[in-house]
Amino acid sequence: MKAVVLLSGGLDSATTLAYATSKGFECHAVTFDYGQRHKIEIKAARKVAKALGAKEHIVVKIDLRKFGGSALTSDTPVPKGRKAKEIGSGIPVTYVPARNTVFLSLALAFAETLGAHDIFIGINALDYSGYPDCRPEFIRAFERTANLATKAGVEGAKFKILAPLIKMTKAEIIRLGRKLGVDYSLTHSCYDPAPDGTPCGKCDSCLLREKGFKEA
Amino acid sequence: MKAVVLLSGGLDSATTLAYATSKGFECHAVTFDYGQRHKIEIKAARKVAKALGAKEHIVVKIDLRKFGGSALTSDTPVPKGRKAKEIGSGIPVTYVPARNTVFLSLALAFAETLGAHDIFIGINALDYSGYPDCRPEFIRAFERTANLATKAGVEGAKFKILAPLIKMTKAEIIRLGRKLGVDYSLTHSCYDPAPDGTPCGKCDSCLLREKGFKEA
Repeated sequence: MKAVVLLSGGLDSATTLAYATSKGFECHAVTFDYGQRHKIEIKAARKVAKALGAKEHIVVKIDLRKFGGSALTSDTPVPKGRKAKEIGSGIPVTYVPARNTVFLSLALAFAETLGAHDIFIGINALDYSGYPDCRPEFIRAFERTANLATKAGVEGAKFKILAPLIKMTKAEIIRLGRKLGVDYSLTHSCYDPAPDGTPCGKCDSCLLREKGFKEA
Repeated sequence: MKAVVLLSGGLDSATTLAYATSKGFECHAVTFDYGQRHKIEIKAARKVAKALGAKEHIVVKIDLRKFGGSALTSDTPVPKGRKAKEIGSGIPVTYVPARNTVFLSLALAFAETLGAHDIFIGINALDYSGYPDCRPEFIRAFERTANLATKAGVEGAKFKILAPLIKMTKAEIIRLGRKLGVDYSLTHSCYDPAPDGTPCGKCDSCLLREKGFKEA
């Protein structure tokens, strides 16, 4: 059975791809090139897709920069050195307006074209409780929309948005990934790496990653 | 008050833009360049936005061609010479997988960045009953998703997806547009124009347009 898997090149989506593969899906990975400040994520996604045996991997350009409005797509500085308990409180400046809605919509278009009805996304409500589009109620609402929006949905198929990591801690995710053979050295998490790709070690994403590995 | 208006360059979205302007909105028009076979639509959208006094008009590229799967983005021939009653039955081959979901998601990202909460879309359930993503139940589901997906939604704003033409006939749309001063000679409807932009006169879109003008 075919599935579409959103792949960012980070730890969570790599684990999600490994999980989907372990469940017997033929995985079609998709990465969005949305005007991030660095292309290292996309490179990491390519390596991860290959290492985990994705059936194909496509990279789709979308110009979210046209809209501005986030530290990840504009020139707002990425916050550094926040404590773990600060990270989960409030919506961070690294929030990209409607990002997961945009990503899932495009994944839906891809899935319908492929004849796939399962879409995997590596979101996590625990570590990133700040992002509204990482919550289970968002996923359920999107799933309902997907089934009303599409020819396949109208004709009786049932699209499912699968977020297997949604309630896991970073440490649990890493333990799952290790069991499934994920090589985390291929993944990339930093929001603000050096030009050569070295992680800054201080942004929310680096800090959560480090904490996760320690705990795992 | 700011609003985002989806603008294709066709008759319906031009009327929608005129309608939103007449209701006092400061209109930010957005056109998607999604690998259509012709760029005439985008040119028409530029002229319409200018003529109707949009505050700004942005054109966002998305590579839906990567997915294939529709007569409007791939090399499937566009059907010609169908009767009006045939046009509304079944889902036509010109259906683009999840197109309105993709467009509305991007419009939502744009709206949130602008601080706008009203998104206008010129869809029509009557003439195009074949498209699942032109139905009121789809619009309501997307609206619900939008309010769960966004920082603005979580913080209490209420996004509205406004489809003022959804229950109008083509003739009613044209009469409304004329009242609002829309110059329909600027708009473009044909799915399969000649290289110089001349409409084919035989595709569903041309036929519905012609019928609409006759009836109006």
